[in-house]
Amino acid sequence: MKLYGFWRSLATLRVRIAMNLKGLEREEVMVDLQAGVQHSPEYRAVNPQGVLPALIDGEGPPLFQSLSILEYLDERFPKPPLLPSDARGRARVRGLAQIVACDSHPLIVPRIREFLEREFGLDEAQRLAWCRHWLADGLRAIEAHLANDAESGAYCHGDTVTMADVCLVSLAVGYRHYFQGRLEDFPKSAAVVERCLADDAFARAHPLRQPGAPKAA
Amino acid sequence: MKLYGFWRSLATLRVRIAMNLKGLEREEVMVDLQAGVQHSPEYRAVNPQGVLPALIDGEGPPLFQSLSILEYLDERFPKPPLLPSDARGRARVRGLAQIVACDSHPLIVPRIREFLEREFGLDEAQRLAWCRHWLADGLRAIEAHLANDAESGAYCHGDTVTMADVCLVSLAVGYRHYFQGRLEDFPKSAAVVERCLADDAFARAHPLRQPGAPKAA
Repeated sequence: MKLYGFWRSLATLRVRIAMNLKGLEREEVMVDLQAGVQHSPEYRAVNPQGVLPALIDGEGPPLFQSLSILEYLDERFPKPPLLPSDARGRARVRGLAQIVACDSHPLIVPRIREFLEREFGLDEAQRLAWCRHWLADGLRAIEAHLANDAESGAYCHGDTVTMADVCLVSLAVGYRHYFQGRLEDFPKSAAVVERCLADDAFARAHPLRQPGAPKAA
Repeated sequence: MKLYGFWRSLATLRVRIAMNLKGLEREEVMVDLQAGVQHSPEYRAVNPQGVLPALIDGEGPPLFQSLSILEYLDERFPKPPLLPSDARGRARVRGLAQIVACDSHPLIVPRIREFLEREFGLDEAQRLAWCRHWLADGLRAIEAHLANDAESGAYCHGDTVTMADVCLVSLAVGYRHYFQGRLEDFPKSAAVVERCLADDAFARAHPLRQPGAPKAA
């Protein structure tokens, strides 16, 4: 399979982790978000929205949107599953994943930060405050669920990895490494993230271990 | 089932449409977003994130996040289905739904507009430009898929309603009625939306037909 990604992309990180968990080989094509390559006609022909990631599996058209790709991979390659076997469990895991992938991470992606600078003249400190605020907002919501819900376990949902953990790790990595956030403020989330990152499938997917990444970001 | 919603909430609109399509009865509890009731301890006890919607089905804990609720309803009440029967079709429908629910709509919700005003001092015209820009950005991506993809039909995916249509309608209603956007700029999307809104399951769910809505919004 061919994954269009970028070392820094947190949505790509989710797909990379899922593919590692399922033991799937990939070729990763780097689309340099910092150079604006996602807006090129070549990449728009792959994904007309001009965002990462996109995944090509065989002859079919490119798959797009990270959560949709996680669901597709989980349907096509069910072992190990990224969703629980019961409907309410799946709903909770999807809900947690969507706190990250809908309500938190999309607020801090390059096109948003560029708009805030270009249209509203916000400086770097203001843009950093914006990013930290919305990532922390997502972490706060996840933390409340981990603290309150009976289904919380060693991972977000029970004692096995699900797509909620995949998404939480993507949020935590961005918060800590890109925006100097204190993950310690969210202790239950931090414990899950630490447990995940001790797993090679997560660790190998880390942005700072990808080609093109700086020594520290 | 008990749905926590608000007449104006576009994420609640999605759940309302899905429940109508599936013929499910509901009691809707209005959580006044404009008065900030979503931040009350009472509502936080239902949904710790303090956002709409939430759905109570029987004795289980509240369901949260609109796309997760749509998936849950589709699993529990499969007729009529909101997803195609093939994995690639499901991936495309989920991807389209996520363009709306991840990359577009979360940028314009009350907490974002309040932050732009309170923290950055942006005036109403600037906030309106922000909202219009990101909703149009989502519509542009959907329009490109509808124009390019072989699977496009009378609806977003073939000739039956899916959760992609449910999400597209929520985006279009907000764009047109709340932010005075020109849906005509996206003709394929506009045609799908018009077809959907001719269906009573969509029409009855419209924000302006809910209790508490003004005559025009």
